Amino acid sequence: MREVAIIGIGDTKFGELWDLSFRQMGIQAGLSAVYDANLTGDEIDALYVGNMSAGKFIDQEHIGALIADYSGLARDHIPATRVEAADASGGLAFRQGYMAVASGMHDIVVVGGAEKMTDVGDVQSTEIQATAADQQWETSFGATVASLHAMIARRHMFEYGTTREQLAAVAVKNHRHGALNPKAQFQKEIKLESVIKASPVAEPLGMFDCAPVSDGAAAVVLCPLDKARKYTDTPVKVLGSGQASDTLALAHRESITRFDATTVAARRAFKQAGIEARGVQVAEVHDNFTISEILAIEDLGFFPKGTGGKATADGLTSLGAALAVNTSGGLKARGDPMGATGIAQVVELVYQLRGEAGKRQVAGAEKGLAQNVGGTGATAVVTVLGRVN
Amino acid sequence: MREVAIIGIGDTKFGELWDLSFRQMGIQAGLSAVYDANLTGDEIDALYVGNMSAGKFIDQEHIGALIADYSGLARDHIPATRVEAADASGGLAFRQGYMAVASGMHDIVVVGGAEKMTDVGDVQSTEIQATAADQQWETSFGATVASLHAMIARRHMFEYGTTREQLAAVAVKNHRHGALNPKAQFQKEIKLESVIKASPVAEPLGMFDCAPVSDGAAAVVLCPLDKARKYTDTPVKVLGSGQASDTLALAHRESITRFDATTVAARRAFKQAGIEARGVQVAEVHDNFTISEILAIEDLGFFPKGTGGKATADGLTSLGAALAVNTSGGLKARGDPMGATGIAQVVELVYQLRGEAGKRQVAGAEKGLAQNVGGTGATAVVTVLGRVN
Repeated sequence: MREVAIIGIGDTKFGELWDLSFRQMGIQAGLSAVYDANLTGDEIDALYVGNMSAGKFIDQEHIGALIADYSGLARDHIPATRVEAADASGGLAFRQGYMAVASGMHDIVVVGGAEKMTDVGDVQSTEIQATAADQQWETSFGATVASLHAMIARRHMFEYGTTREQLAAVAVKNHRHGALNPKAQFQKEIKLESVIKASPVAEPLGMFDCAPVSDGAAAVVLCPLDKARKYTDTPVKVLGSGQASDTLALAHRESITRFDATTVAARRAFKQAGIEARGVQVAEVHDNFTISEILAIEDLGFFPKGTGGKATADGLTSLGAALAVNTSGGLKARGDPMGATGIAQVVELVYQLRGEAGKRQVAGAEKGLAQNVGGTGATAVVTVLGRVN
Repeated sequence: MREVAIIGIGDTKFGELWDLSFRQMGIQAGLSAVYDANLTGDEIDALYVGNMSAGKFIDQEHIGALIADYSGLARDHIPATRVEAADASGGLAFRQGYMAVASGMHDIVVVGGAEKMTDVGDVQSTEIQATAADQQWETSFGATVASLHAMIARRHMFEYGTTREQLAAVAVKNHRHGALNPKAQFQKEIKLESVIKASPVAEPLGMFDCAPVSDGAAAVVLCPLDKARKYTDTPVKVLGSGQASDTLALAHRESITRFDATTVAARRAFKQAGIEARGVQVAEVHDNFTISEILAIEDLGFFPKGTGGKATADGLTSLGAALAVNTSGGLKARGDPMGATGIAQVVELVYQLRGEAGKRQVAGAEKGLAQNVGGTGATAVVTVLGRVN
């Protein structure tokens, strides 16, 4: 397989983007990435798009062709492919684009992710998000994504003594980071007591334990590493990519306080990258709920199982620590447009590895990791990126 | 890139499968393919699934993980990825699986396609199928997939003198072929006058010019060609794969009587395969409407533009001719479960190239071609397969 580099990035602000349609967001992010890579567009060989549920959100499937069309790429009849794995759609699309370049099939590939969630009401949005879970064994009995994560949180508290305050510490930290990110949906710090006193969504999780409903898009441009310098002075190398699955329903697993798909995907990505968890200085993990980040930093091997809450409360994942987690603000504060999230994570790592992350820059970041999860851990994809010195 | 072979195939009967759920169909097809490849399941490295709109048809996204889970593959945490491009979803999933093996990323990959369409009513099904078209410029004004194809048919009749009888000849021929296929939804011949006199759907297209609403699933197993003999005595080689896009809306194209995406995808696939159209003896093309097959056999280069109707009426695409088109019965008679269709085409070619197609066997078939289209030609994928002698 050929070595692959990221040579361009682009993203929209995340939030309730009333004035941008799905296709407009896709174009905005995609063209920013193409421009960032110093391309004119003619050089692009293929497009991958991560999207969870445009069919249900905006009555539109056939998302690859849609974005190719309105970006002007259908003119050259490039292959355009949509990839879906619930909220891991972006991460999987990235992996497909990576394989398309690594295989030698294509040279210049754009990978985008987009979701337009606010064109439907909140109840409908909750229902659509729940299509990530097992329709037969979970959602048909009324489970929502939040209630499933609440069960995980309760069990983690029971098994490991994780506290309400430790859960809240994830939200406080990610809002603190998000306040430094001009593209974040919430650029505002919040207090621990606000998180704890917020309206309950599915106890113990309250409003501020949950990532928001968001619109947004993000994109990257990939090419073979040996051609990257032709387009940019600051290529970022894809060091490793791992993907794994697990049972769709939580009830079918041995344990619900770990996501084995994360652990296996991470093992595969670390092996390919030739590094271990401690070799990473900056990580974007899938904090769709506060408990999710605690699971993530444990399952990725950053902290021993059961200690993720304490590590967070102790500041070990904050900007300034040896490992900074979710410098973008994470899904919690940066926002969580499902299909866009996995690509936005990669975009944040590229900002960091290029040294372009402004006030939230991790000094001397050499290697970054993104962990993108679908549903309650039935899909996980882990990407390891590195500076090219 | 490594050379890739198909070492196993499996498919369900297509039709109104009231007694099989989406996941059951997926398992049935997948396990048949795994069994056909003489695998136990432990050797499988990755899964790709083509599906158009399970979100809208059965309230379930996250289709890759779902199928991995219920096939027992989540046990090994294999990567499972869903690919979507409307009714070209299966063809695109095949291409992603092909790239995953060709790249060296994975050795044994299962690619499936599935759709459960009959759990919703006919009006809703029509609405869901229309999410393949441009929501902003077509479906929001009431266009359906059938009405868009009716416009194409009218224009083809105007430009090239294609007749109502020639359109009907496609349906008659494909039902004649389907009558020889025990897996076909309609195993019954029909008369030309029945097609012409059938209830109109969108004139000039009547009921028998349209592929049915179907449930079904199909699957194949891929591995590197140099390892194929370990699993099967009759590997089939992937000679070429091409994919292309076009504008989503018909109105944005120079001409609506050709699908440029088909022509470009075919050119790419033929170039890789090192053959031309005349090197193919058996082809499965995307006849979701009778006019679609006429466009296909022209755009693929089998017949000059404008002569596809006459060629069909003259029997040049029937079993026994130098080129047999849609020996399975095609989407028209074999059935058209959107996401499964592209894989079912490949399965039929493998039956033919192995010499296992029974009463519909094309004598001495050496090379086969599958053309799978999304929407009204905004996506096309062409796959060329060959016997390994």
